[in-house]
Amino acid sequence: MYYIGIDVGGMSIKGGIVSEEGKILHKSVVETRESYDENYSISLDIKRAIDELLDSSNIGMNEIKGIGIGEPGSIDYYKGIVRYSNNIAITNVHVVKELKAYYDVPIFIDNDANCAALGEYVFGEAKSYKNILFVTLGTGIGTGILTDGVLLRGNGNAGAEGGHTVIRMNGNRCNCGRRGCYETYASVTALIRDTKIAMDAHPESLMWEIAKNEGKINGKVSFAAAKRGDKTALSVVKRYIKYVSEGLTNLVNIFRPDVVIIGGGISFEGEYLTKPIERYINRNSFGSKYNPKTKVIPASLTNDAGILGAAALLLAK
Amino acid sequence: MYYIGIDVGGMSIKGGIVSEEGKILHKSVVETRESYDENYSISLDIKRAIDELLDSSNIGMNEIKGIGIGEPGSIDYYKGIVRYSNNIAITNVHVVKELKAYYDVPIFIDNDANCAALGEYVFGEAKSYKNILFVTLGTGIGTGILTDGVLLRGNGNAGAEGGHTVIRMNGNRCNCGRRGCYETYASVTALIRDTKIAMDAHPESLMWEIAKNEGKINGKVSFAAAKRGDKTALSVVKRYIKYVSEGLTNLVNIFRPDVVIIGGGISFEGEYLTKPIERYINRNSFGSKYNPKTKVIPASLTNDAGILGAAALLLAK
Repeated sequence: MYYIGIDVGGMSIKGGIVSEEGKILHKSVVETRESYDENYSISLDIKRAIDELLDSSNIGMNEIKGIGIGEPGSIDYYKGIVRYSNNIAITNVHVVKELKAYYDVPIFIDNDANCAALGEYVFGEAKSYKNILFVTLGTGIGTGILTDGVLLRGNGNAGAEGGHTVIRMNGNRCNCGRRGCYETYASVTALIRDTKIAMDAHPESLMWEIAKNEGKINGKVSFAAAKRGDKTALSVVKRYIKYVSEGLTNLVNIFRPDVVIIGGGISFEGEYLTKPIERYINRNSFGSKYNPKTKVIPASLTNDAGILGAAALLLAK
Repeated sequence: MYYIGIDVGGMSIKGGIVSEEGKILHKSVVETRESYDENYSISLDIKRAIDELLDSSNIGMNEIKGIGIGEPGSIDYYKGIVRYSNNIAITNVHVVKELKAYYDVPIFIDNDANCAALGEYVFGEAKSYKNILFVTLGTGIGTGILTDGVLLRGNGNAGAEGGHTVIRMNGNRCNCGRRGCYETYASVTALIRDTKIAMDAHPESLMWEIAKNEGKINGKVSFAAAKRGDKTALSVVKRYIKYVSEGLTNLVNIFRPDVVIIGGGISFEGEYLTKPIERYINRNSFGSKYNPKTKVIPASLTNDAGILGAAALLLAK
């Protein structure tokens, strides 16, 4: 028996047929439209991605145990509704109900950060842990949290917004309307902003050469230059890691997880990123002298994390 | 059948025999010693409180279903150990194991904030909710959190330290070693500090008269003067409520509880305190336009909350 995982992104919908062990046997991709409305729901494009999977494989619907869907945004897991999406202009779409008209299997939808956390728990490095804090550092900051093996959802599945916790009152303005949210300091968007400011102030910095080779100023520029000893880059990276660690220490004090998993493209920096964060947390978390230590590791599922995380919705509690 | 609840405080150990419905039938009090050591464990004074209960009632041990103990500090619920206590100088005491030598019933120990949250869930106003955020505003800030009816514990039961989340990086120094923790702004200790500063700057404030009648500057002074229209007091209270709300909005974004319960002496301010907090949270929490609203209420168990919360350890999951 197999599972279907669907990863809804801003540009495309990616599908995969996934085995119990987390192996992806077939994949499909459907481009998303510029807009959706009552005449053409996003569910129809999700259906296209599912049907492509079934058509291109010799696996029939009778071998599919269920369909899981991951999407960035505010998702009512309990009712199967996209309340609103971060990257596609849709609100209050009854995705699960609409797909149930075509497929007679369990169907679940959840936000991408919850799926990513579940993916690591079911298929990834976090299999042996029960208390897991997954944090994606990207355009914003997403968090997915398991306590004692159960995903934290909250009322209407609207919880686990760890990126929207103020770490500096009256600080940077955040998209959510508040000031000083964690994601305005520790997202990759924030890192790029701070990289640009440092580059402007330091024309001699190696970051200029690296950015030229990259073709743009992205999240890698400061890390690459720092690893080669560039002082300006080192100070950018040091401050960034301090911001990331400060927000994570807050979350560690709240959840005291066994493991913190860092996701997003920046997790490719590996231990250069995770080790200083781990040291910071274990030095500064509450009662660190008496309380259990927390491991910090990079995400283990990378390219297909979205598909695997969505499929994991069917395998977890 | 009955339960025994034990509330370990800095000055005394309070015991109660509690019915299934949360009625306290008998009480006992034992003064704590100035110090405990391997020759005289705190478990012996807890035993005295239990035996007094049994001696003074006509209820025998055969009618007791279990013993619950609440204590401020870092408590390993899973192992039944006080790792360290906030108000009595003890570390790594195997309380449950030591008491098991005398009583052949289930015995649990947990920290006071967890017990308080459970007490409200099992015996109090929060019975009808599943996602509960309990916050005690006192000397510090304690939090107890239930998600889907289960207490958040984390690794070694060291989680749920919501008071130790930085809301202002590089801000006020906190006992935990960090700077800017929520409790350095929104505890009653912080309120009293800010009340004193405002009084010093405003000799004409009504707060002077109220403090004189109270015999000291406590958490009530600013609220009492504010209710009578004193401008200085109004600004102290307004800022305090903003601090309380800002930290709570962070926790609401993380947990999206059905209800936030405010405990501690200051909860006697009732809706004068809770209504503005509720408005602030529901205006500023993430995606407030789409997401479920959160109720904010004062704690319903007051004087005997410690005993009832401890007994609730036996009745909750």
